[in-house]
Amino acid sequence: MKTISENRCFGGVQGVYSHASDACACDMTFGLYLPPQAQDGPVPVLWYLSGLTCTHENAMVKAGAQAHAARHGIAVVFPDTSPRGPGVADDAAYDLGQGAGFYVNATEAPWAPHFRMWDYVATELPQVLTAAFPIAAERQAITGHSMGGHGALTLAMGLPGQYRSVSAFAPICNPTAADWGRKQLNAYLGADETAWAPHDATLMMRAQGLDAPLLIDTGNADQFGDHLRTEALAQAIAERRQAATIRLQKGYDHSYFFVSTFMGDHVAFHADALRA
Amino acid sequence: MKTISENRCFGGVQGVYSHASDACACDMTFGLYLPPQAQDGPVPVLWYLSGLTCTHENAMVKAGAQAHAARHGIAVVFPDTSPRGPGVADDAAYDLGQGAGFYVNATEAPWAPHFRMWDYVATELPQVLTAAFPIAAERQAITGHSMGGHGALTLAMGLPGQYRSVSAFAPICNPTAADWGRKQLNAYLGADETAWAPHDATLMMRAQGLDAPLLIDTGNADQFGDHLRTEALAQAIAERRQAATIRLQKGYDHSYFFVSTFMGDHVAFHADALRA
Repeated sequence: MKTISENRCFGGVQGVYSHASDACACDMTFGLYLPPQAQDGPVPVLWYLSGLTCTHENAMVKAGAQAHAARHGIAVVFPDTSPRGPGVADDAAYDLGQGAGFYVNATEAPWAPHFRMWDYVATELPQVLTAAFPIAAERQAITGHSMGGHGALTLAMGLPGQYRSVSAFAPICNPTAADWGRKQLNAYLGADETAWAPHDATLMMRAQGLDAPLLIDTGNADQFGDHLRTEALAQAIAERRQAATIRLQKGYDHSYFFVSTFMGDHVAFHADALRA
Repeated sequence: MKTISENRCFGGVQGVYSHASDACACDMTFGLYLPPQAQDGPVPVLWYLSGLTCTHENAMVKAGAQAHAARHGIAVVFPDTSPRGPGVADDAAYDLGQGAGFYVNATEAPWAPHFRMWDYVATELPQVLTAAFPIAAERQAITGHSMGGHGALTLAMGLPGQYRSVSAFAPICNPTAADWGRKQLNAYLGADETAWAPHDATLMMRAQGLDAPLLIDTGNADQFGDHLRTEALAQAIAERRQAATIRLQKGYDHSYFFVSTFMGDHVAFHADALRA
């Protein structure tokens, strides 16, 4: 593992590190915020999965998570959103290929050799983190924004017991029925839509639900509302009588100004679950 | 005035606007955060002056000021750091020309026609703001980072009574004696160093002091510490018995991770003075 940078931040350390990833078969970069409490021993960790076009860096510098993480004594990890590099497949579109991994294990050419973000986030990076940093492996929570909200919801439902709490900011809720989803799931997983179902939060909610506290915030002025299909997940949650809080926030759009506004609520929500 | 963007943020609005500037003889862009309290009438305003290479945008998305401004009911304005555009003089160096206005009125070629950031921040932009937004003109405070900290300190001492409180993050304290200063003051103001003195916080502190509360935070691990010359200003403040708080923050560097960590303290400090 290589240290790219470390900056003191709210009494802790905001680090950026790279490592050779087995899952993605390339070097991967991630951000990790360790709160001051990490000096005294392992701390819980909140995963923050980012959206389309983002790297590890966007949320790390724009979402304002560190202030709240320091207050609650929680680490926050900011993975990249895809494999990257000259040997990694890509597409000219902003919403496919590098920067758009969609948190799946691709099975189709040319994506399959590197685009294994599900395994990377679910299995490999947790091991890397707990081996190198004072992170309490048994106390994980997960959140994310947009495509990363999709990742948080689907990973949490696909890996019952791994995360103590789950939240999302403006998540892509129903990718099998949306422009943000059908194209990518077809490209990464092939035309057989049965392979898509384990990567659609609405379908997973209908089929199995979630055994963890759930908080979702989406702006009611989100310019990508049609792509998110919040209504589909809200209906599935209500039909299932799933314990959850879904908030449509008045006047907010899809930006980091929205994310940062509600970050304090989300970190506090996860802190409650992680302390329990 | 043209609206570039408006995003809901912490119950208020983070806007970006451009306008034709008389002072700089070009279009200028600025960010303005209006807190929710601005819906009920004019609110106090905090100026945030940014550092070398920054535009209006960097602090607006990275410094985390909006959360605190919303809590205290204060607007925050983020001016650009220089005139810009194809007709505006520039230099290949990052620390001269566009992005490096140093908050002076240039008198030398090729800078004099546009590089009048002192007048822009001191006079023109306040008038633009109070004419177009619910800003209380008589309740202003000022802060800034690095070159912007230099701007905040020198504007406040050069315009007694204009700002009710003054703070700075890692300010350039003594530019007439530092690599961040001598080159630029020479370029913008000419070789006669008597013209530089009204743009050096340490010299101004020695000569006249400041009739307002003053807070300075600088990391003791700041990688540009030699350029800042905090020691010169600290000495001048102590010699003058100027009421001030100077904090050397353990382990912090020059980044926005440092700025955001202490932003809450600075906004609260200004809120005390603006409410008084």
